[in-house]
Amino acid sequence: MSEKLDQIKQLFGEVADLNRAASVLSWDQQVNMPQHGGEARGQQLATLGKLAQEKFTSDEMGRLLEDLKNEHSDAETDEGAMIRVAARDYDKAKRVPPSFVAKQAVVASKAFEAWVEAKGKSDFSIFQPHLEKVVELVKEYISFFPPANHPYDVLLDDYEPGMKTAEVREIFGNLRPKQVELIKAIADSKQVKDDFLHKKYPEKKVWDFSETIITQFGYDFSRGRQDKAPHPFETTFSVNDVRITNRFEPGNPLATLFSAMHEAGHAMYEQGVNPAYERIPLASGVSLAIHESQSRMWENLVGRSLPFWEYFHPQLKKIFPSQLDGVGVKAFYKAINKVEPSLIRVNADEATYNLHIMLRLEIEIGMVDGSIAIKDLPEIWNEKMREYLGITPPDDARGVLQDIHWSYGSIGYFSTYALGNIVSAQLWEAVNKDVRNLEDEFRKGRFEQLLVWLREKIHIHGRKYDPQDLVQKVTGSRIDSAAYVRYLTKKYSEIYGL
Amino acid sequence: MSEKLDQIKQLFGEVADLNRAASVLSWDQQVNMPQHGGEARGQQLATLGKLAQEKFTSDEMGRLLEDLKNEHSDAETDEGAMIRVAARDYDKAKRVPPSFVAKQAVVASKAFEAWVEAKGKSDFSIFQPHLEKVVELVKEYISFFPPANHPYDVLLDDYEPGMKTAEVREIFGNLRPKQVELIKAIADSKQVKDDFLHKKYPEKKVWDFSETIITQFGYDFSRGRQDKAPHPFETTFSVNDVRITNRFEPGNPLATLFSAMHEAGHAMYEQGVNPAYERIPLASGVSLAIHESQSRMWENLVGRSLPFWEYFHPQLKKIFPSQLDGVGVKAFYKAINKVEPSLIRVNADEATYNLHIMLRLEIEIGMVDGSIAIKDLPEIWNEKMREYLGITPPDDARGVLQDIHWSYGSIGYFSTYALGNIVSAQLWEAVNKDVRNLEDEFRKGRFEQLLVWLREKIHIHGRKYDPQDLVQKVTGSRIDSAAYVRYLTKKYSEIYGL
Repeated sequence: MSEKLDQIKQLFGEVADLNRAASVLSWDQQVNMPQHGGEARGQQLATLGKLAQEKFTSDEMGRLLEDLKNEHSDAETDEGAMIRVAARDYDKAKRVPPSFVAKQAVVASKAFEAWVEAKGKSDFSIFQPHLEKVVELVKEYISFFPPANHPYDVLLDDYEPGMKTAEVREIFGNLRPKQVELIKAIADSKQVKDDFLHKKYPEKKVWDFSETIITQFGYDFSRGRQDKAPHPFETTFSVNDVRITNRFEPGNPLATLFSAMHEAGHAMYEQGVNPAYERIPLASGVSLAIHESQSRMWENLVGRSLPFWEYFHPQLKKIFPSQLDGVGVKAFYKAINKVEPSLIRVNADEATYNLHIMLRLEIEIGMVDGSIAIKDLPEIWNEKMREYLGITPPDDARGVLQDIHWSYGSIGYFSTYALGNIVSAQLWEAVNKDVRNLEDEFRKGRFEQLLVWLREKIHIHGRKYDPQDLVQKVTGSRIDSAAYVRYLTKKYSEIYGL
Repeated sequence: MSEKLDQIKQLFGEVADLNRAASVLSWDQQVNMPQHGGEARGQQLATLGKLAQEKFTSDEMGRLLEDLKNEHSDAETDEGAMIRVAARDYDKAKRVPPSFVAKQAVVASKAFEAWVEAKGKSDFSIFQPHLEKVVELVKEYISFFPPANHPYDVLLDDYEPGMKTAEVREIFGNLRPKQVELIKAIADSKQVKDDFLHKKYPEKKVWDFSETIITQFGYDFSRGRQDKAPHPFETTFSVNDVRITNRFEPGNPLATLFSAMHEAGHAMYEQGVNPAYERIPLASGVSLAIHESQSRMWENLVGRSLPFWEYFHPQLKKIFPSQLDGVGVKAFYKAINKVEPSLIRVNADEATYNLHIMLRLEIEIGMVDGSIAIKDLPEIWNEKMREYLGITPPDDARGVLQDIHWSYGSIGYFSTYALGNIVSAQLWEAVNKDVRNLEDEFRKGRFEQLLVWLREKIHIHGRKYDPQDLVQKVTGSRIDSAAYVRYLTKKYSEIYGL
């Protein structure tokens, strides 16, 4: 290994240590921190972020990257991929002046406060001037980068390297009419019964059962843990310390099980990254969409499948005999897959979820390219809700104000949620070609073959390949909604007898 | 505020953020970290430590300190004290070359492994060559500093700024014969009964009661929390986030209560430091002895006192009616104060504890000044155990190998444990002069007056005054064992009818 490679790995290592230390502090803030610890924690996180940024954008880093680009130009090698990915990150980081980041933080902080108030009062006009400023800054951010086919490309690229607005629109454009059609067909069918899902389930038993399931999936508790937090999330401190959080909602007790599967899907991805990538920029999942393909696969394609419950339903009935009295596995399976157009994205079922996303994507693109005026947002939102889901929000709180993301300036990543669903179905078809009788395995409570396949095809590579290239490599085609449409149609045709 | 003062505070702030981030990571390592997370965590901690050190010993820091020393020479002002304390820390940090720190880490790591093996096999000869290297490095460390009256002064000063070996020897020299005499008198008396302390007590109830007690003391759970860990300790992330850990030993169930009081004593000190000192070098307790004076006061002078239990004993009996059936408050009080010379320091009672410390201090001084050869340690240890405590360790594991400290090169701070006991009694006499009827307050379960006094006299000052100066300021005399002898003699004369 060359001396310069040693030097850059040393630098990468320190940046990684700072960023992962910050992740520990953030996790602690969500999970453990006492009421008054926030101010100091904010300062500590700011300092870690600043030092990581300074180190990553240092002249030394720039020189080393420049020198090593030629020496390691083969992106098929780990070193080549590392330099390629780091050089792209470096270029992005250098384009954005620290003063802009500071300015954005101030605007976001105020916008967040305004959003909280606006949502509380269900009054978009309180949020509107702040969102206008947020969008102005997003446009300024875009201006730091070379002109793209569409300004929104710049934002997408931060979460989904290489992905273009036109591509996403095409993918979603193919999917939307089919998904809208499916939901209409379901609406015309007899609704399934799910009252038993909303009975009282004791929290501890649900929590323990969630850990039984994800342990069986292959989430490694000797390299992770599950804790209570206000929102479920996954966070990585090293390949050997990948944690998830979860919550318990008395009104929706079994949601804890599906959240655990979802977050464990993210976590198994991170636990499966090549350990040789520790402390270099390849050491994490490659993009939000690929990440979401993993979480959604374990949550939905596995966790909301009939074979899965053919194995787990008897156990569940033993633990909750009164709640599930007289409920057979088929009825249970139908209930957890009930489709019902609803107002709130985070509560949406598998069949309607993507439509919530598509609505947001179109609005984001419109805000960024100027074709949508911020003041018109509530109206446009409600119009699209009617068009896509056939329902009208009764107020802004349950409409345009429901999500936190825009308030802190986060524009560009909603689409990755839907792309993740789409990719999960493509991978599903691929693994079912490679591994025969996967469903029979699930019926026996065995998930190793799926995990081994994912490890080898996806997880191990970390950030080595760009998302579209990775999907192409593994499935033979780029991201495309056909497999997802097949999956949804088959599943819901059976459940609703379409 | 001058521009330079702004600059140095900015630097101090970043160093503090790095160090406190490291504390969060260490706490998490003890409390939460999954089995395999250690290697990456070690690297993250090393990076945070290295960056904090680099920043603190930077030329910029040196220049600013030099410039500000003259401008802020009045150590009675906060700015003056800050510069004085930081300049001393800086001088120390600059004297020790980074290469030495790295070398010491390697030796310590090997010595620690050897100690684990030696203790397991109860064979000092396995540890001996490693301890010899550790002591050689300690001598090298001392050589980086200007010659002192005694080489051990350099080590003491790291934990107890300004304290000299001769002073500690004098303090201990006055105390030892009296304490040995007291123990002999107790040994000739009728032993107290304490079998009921070792019955089965359910863990959760003990844990909850420990939190009842420390909440009543004034430990602020909105700025802290108590978690399970292998060893009890206190750690500070900010004045508003001061956490403690505790454990439950089935063989010694009520130890959890006293550990909670002890660690809460440390934590209330840190919660009471002037909030204006956040992120500058004054923001913590001033020394280990003063810290220990706080923990020991709450644990022993309060928590093992009769008035305290006159309030809490009825509650305890309600929670554990069968375990404490027929046990009155006096019998309970005597039991928790039972004196019995024993082999292991960490299990020692209040009356014998200091003798364990004095033994270690004499041996440490001898190792450092060369008057004791490492190979003779087991023999010298056992000799002193006979002389001080009247018992002989049956093997090295329960003798010279019992403590972890020397294995990682930590020589110089044992004495602070005993100094803490001594100071706690001096402060006790002082507060009882200032606050009338403190014991009556305790009988009503009220501890505010004690805490308010400690806040004002000790806590608020952080590191502003050196320990001896602080004790002088508050009690009118320097550290002196007379008050402690009075306290021990009175207490045990009553309990044992001497």
